[in-house]
Amino acid sequence: MAEITAELVRTLREKTNAGMMECKKALTEANGNLEEAETILRKKGIAKAGSKADRATKEGIIASYIHGPGRVGVIVEVNCETDFVAKNDSFREFVKDVMLHIAASSPKYVRREEVPEAEVAKERDIASELLKAEMAKGGKPKPQNVIDQIVTGRLEKFYATVCLMEQAFIKNPDQTITDFVKSKIAEMGENIQIRRFVRYAVGEEL
Amino acid sequence: MAEITAELVRTLREKTNAGMMECKKALTEANGNLEEAETILRKKGIAKAGSKADRATKEGIIASYIHGPGRVGVIVEVNCETDFVAKNDSFREFVKDVMLHIAASSPKYVRREEVPEAEVAKERDIASELLKAEMAKGGKPKPQNVIDQIVTGRLEKFYATVCLMEQAFIKNPDQTITDFVKSKIAEMGENIQIRRFVRYAVGEEL
Repeated sequence: MAEITAELVRTLREKTNAGMMECKKALTEANGNLEEAETILRKKGIAKAGSKADRATKEGIIASYIHGPGRVGVIVEVNCETDFVAKNDSFREFVKDVMLHIAASSPKYVRREEVPEAEVAKERDIASELLKAEMAKGGKPKPQNVIDQIVTGRLEKFYATVCLMEQAFIKNPDQTITDFVKSKIAEMGENIQIRRFVRYAVGEEL
Repeated sequence: MAEITAELVRTLREKTNAGMMECKKALTEANGNLEEAETILRKKGIAKAGSKADRATKEGIIASYIHGPGRVGVIVEVNCETDFVAKNDSFREFVKDVMLHIAASSPKYVRREEVPEAEVAKERDIASELLKAEMAKGGKPKPQNVIDQIVTGRLEKFYATVCLMEQAFIKNPDQTITDFVKSKIAEMGENIQIRRFVRYAVGEEL
């Protein structure tokens, strides 16, 4: 049986815009054959998702979730292409899952593009200072390209912590929220976008 | 019968922190006598409000309101001093009224202090350009102090349009939201503060 490398999965994801787990499964099924895996995804209707990601999403809903007696609350706007999908039960279930996830995981942004440049710079600075301190304590110094790579890796972890779309979905940690949205796009047959959200907790610092 | 001037009402409001309509009523009852009006307000428990306005508000609730099938939604944080009030039905009714108001009246900020300086400057600029155009069209030029006064008046109207606390309460347009909050503070006997809100409408420009 062929090994399904991370590289292979990434390539298939880029070609099809499908979720990571779906790509892995298709590649396993196709015994590592990329073209065959793509066909499998197309047959399942999952590979359609990619081509839909650019379509206008002007419909949708505003929905909210209040946790317990009201210590935490979430409001979201999720867009789709038609009023028909906006009213669909499965779509509404999906929106509810996204809100539950936000309530539990406290993301700060929807996408990494929204993180202010100053915050990214600060995180990069912290990561590189931390690394310097680690290098000063033990062992030999690392070459600059290795340092850059480690800092970049830590920044990726930062994004995965604060950005909703990159977080692991609490109900299925094998999926990111991006994967979850993609699977819903495939199911619904139209583009879906989490446009914005806020999460409030009583008395939290602003 | 003594005339109840706006000046008199403002003085009483500053002394007692009570709502405008309450002050007017008390002054009418007291035939324009300021001290007596204050005593009337104290007896009604309304004048207590002032002394409470500085107390810490660390409890409260996060609540949300979705209009109809989800084209518009509101989330708020309203703070109070104790968990007891946060759970009180009358407090929760009050929060619901505030949300209905926000859904209907689309304020942009809670308080005027939150309006960005650039937005205020722009409004001031528009008001004064408009006034110049009006003066150029008809009649004699106005002295600078009159111009300043008119521009200030228009800015006040701008604040009353975009700031929740200064809007006329939709359920009772004689009251501002500030008045409404003050009356609730008097009723509950503890400080209450609308801390923050967002109002989402599907597809609106950001």
